[in-house]
Amino acid sequence: MKITLNPHAKDAATRDELVAEGGFGKYYTDHMVICEWSEKDGWGEPHLMPYGPISLDPATAVFHYGQEIFEGMKAYRQPDGSISLFRPTANAKRFANSAKRLALPEMPVELFMETIEALVTQDAGWVPSKVGESLYIRPFMIATEVGLGVRPTNKATYILIATPAGAYFDPSKAVSVWISTEYVRAAQGGTGEAKCGGNYAASLIAQKAAAKEGCDQVVWIDAKERKWVEEMGGMNLYFVKGKGADATVITPKLTGTLLPGITRDSILSVAVDLGYKVDEVMCQSMIGEMALHPVKLLKSLHAEQQLLFLPLVKQRVPWVLG
Amino acid sequence: MKITLNPHAKDAATRDELVAEGGFGKYYTDHMVICEWSEKDGWGEPHLMPYGPISLDPATAVFHYGQEIFEGMKAYRQPDGSISLFRPTANAKRFANSAKRLALPEMPVELFMETIEALVTQDAGWVPSKVGESLYIRPFMIATEVGLGVRPTNKATYILIATPAGAYFDPSKAVSVWISTEYVRAAQGGTGEAKCGGNYAASLIAQKAAAKEGCDQVVWIDAKERKWVEEMGGMNLYFVKGKGADATVITPKLTGTLLPGITRDSILSVAVDLGYKVDEVMCQSMIGEMALHPVKLLKSLHAEQQLLFLPLVKQRVPWVLG
Repeated sequence: MKITLNPHAKDAATRDELVAEGGFGKYYTDHMVICEWSEKDGWGEPHLMPYGPISLDPATAVFHYGQEIFEGMKAYRQPDGSISLFRPTANAKRFANSAKRLALPEMPVELFMETIEALVTQDAGWVPSKVGESLYIRPFMIATEVGLGVRPTNKATYILIATPAGAYFDPSKAVSVWISTEYVRAAQGGTGEAKCGGNYAASLIAQKAAAKEGCDQVVWIDAKERKWVEEMGGMNLYFVKGKGADATVITPKLTGTLLPGITRDSILSVAVDLGYKVDEVMCQSMIGEMALHPVKLLKSLHAEQQLLFLPLVKQRVPWVLG
Repeated sequence: MKITLNPHAKDAATRDELVAEGGFGKYYTDHMVICEWSEKDGWGEPHLMPYGPISLDPATAVFHYGQEIFEGMKAYRQPDGSISLFRPTANAKRFANSAKRLALPEMPVELFMETIEALVTQDAGWVPSKVGESLYIRPFMIATEVGLGVRPTNKATYILIATPAGAYFDPSKAVSVWISTEYVRAAQGGTGEAKCGGNYAASLIAQKAAAKEGCDQVVWIDAKERKWVEEMGGMNLYFVKGKGADATVITPKLTGTLLPGITRDSILSVAVDLGYKVDEVMCQSMIGEMALHPVKLLKSLHAEQQLLFLPLVKQRVPWVLG
């Protein structure tokens, strides 16, 4: 990896002040990693360099045809001061799957991991140390061929940036949800399984509608029958049936339209290890319970979920991020 | 409008050589127009300036959440040397509709028109003069808020660029089509009606599959029942039933998942003026005729379509662009 250190990197005191501010995505670390791909030459050597603006021709594909994917992952400060990532190779694999669906080049898992490790190591001072805080890591890839023809790009740029993050949701209160009956996130054969820009762009109008009703998040239902619960804007969905040792963790089945959450996969695995039952099903019945209007469903589930999920995510969040 | 002329504008001889090359999107005119919007201040003054790269923070929303829309329109050289646009206010209105769906600011029609007129006037020398050629005009808007929170952007940039264009399809042969049974372009409640990047990003994998089968374009069928013909990757679809004065022009109904083509609207209007019957319907029966495998459907329709559409589009194209 080529390395060009930032001569204007923040000093430790300034950096610690910024990190202490919390929030999400307000400040970025001193460096980023860029790796270029072309159809002709494949992946080039990644370059760790000072964080800064990128310059693109206005006819660059990403501005027109939305050929872009991303991942989101976190680095956590451990009690002994070391830093851990949570299943980063799972993100690497999902990133490659997203690339395939969006006709972008699949980045080898080893190359992806090399960039993550390089940036987190270089900017380790930016990883917060309070419980619930983390360094949010954002790998993304954009189509960089210049030209307006609608075709898979012959050039792509992978960029890796990172930002210190507080808790994304306030852990002291439930997440209120709005079931979107007007808008659809993804259909079978679409891009619902991929972590691509278009899915999020399509969801913003529904998020606006949810906010108008005082709700934090949108719950998406399926495109075809309009009755199966799929996921939320920023996370997968879980329901708990029964209590204590008899609890079953229920989550919508991966039908091809949901994002296969890495936290989702982890929760289902760990729940089984802990002796709970898990069920991946088409969650129709939940709609009746939620009713097709804004609800504060989680207030009622809150107590149970804490019982079940506290041991899993080690945070007082009533809805589990996935 | 603020104006900064390009001191390195191409001289007439060089420019004419580039224009004569034909093709699509290879060269861009000497200028572009940029207009910034913010939630706080609304639309700023548009700025006509030298064509050149734009510089963006890597955490800019457009790279992550695909909040981007565009339009495509053409300026034609007339026999008397003057330049005409084809229904540009229809593009302006569709651009505003796309903005609404993507939670981007709606640009007033007058402002949109002002930018188009300014660029086409300034770079008039780039409008080709051969029949079938044009100056392709690309207005687009991207979300420019810096930050990784998933929310409607509070800043957007409108950019207008233009490129001389030859005929997009070879008018001497039919467009061969591939019906996509695996991939879906748009579902009810999705973004199918909007001209946004995500729709095109989602389509590229199907286009690759079509190319593998030796086909030029994908024909999309509906997301729900998977049997209604909707549109093609780059244009709306038309079928002709009957011949001569008895011909009926049939095109798929706008169900909310198709792009409401301006050429589509024009053809339907002009066909009626010319005494033809038109029918906007759910085109199920066509699937049987097309069959669910690669077909060169248009070879059979070619002769009829020329009869009907030559007077409309003034080009020897067997499929009508919409």
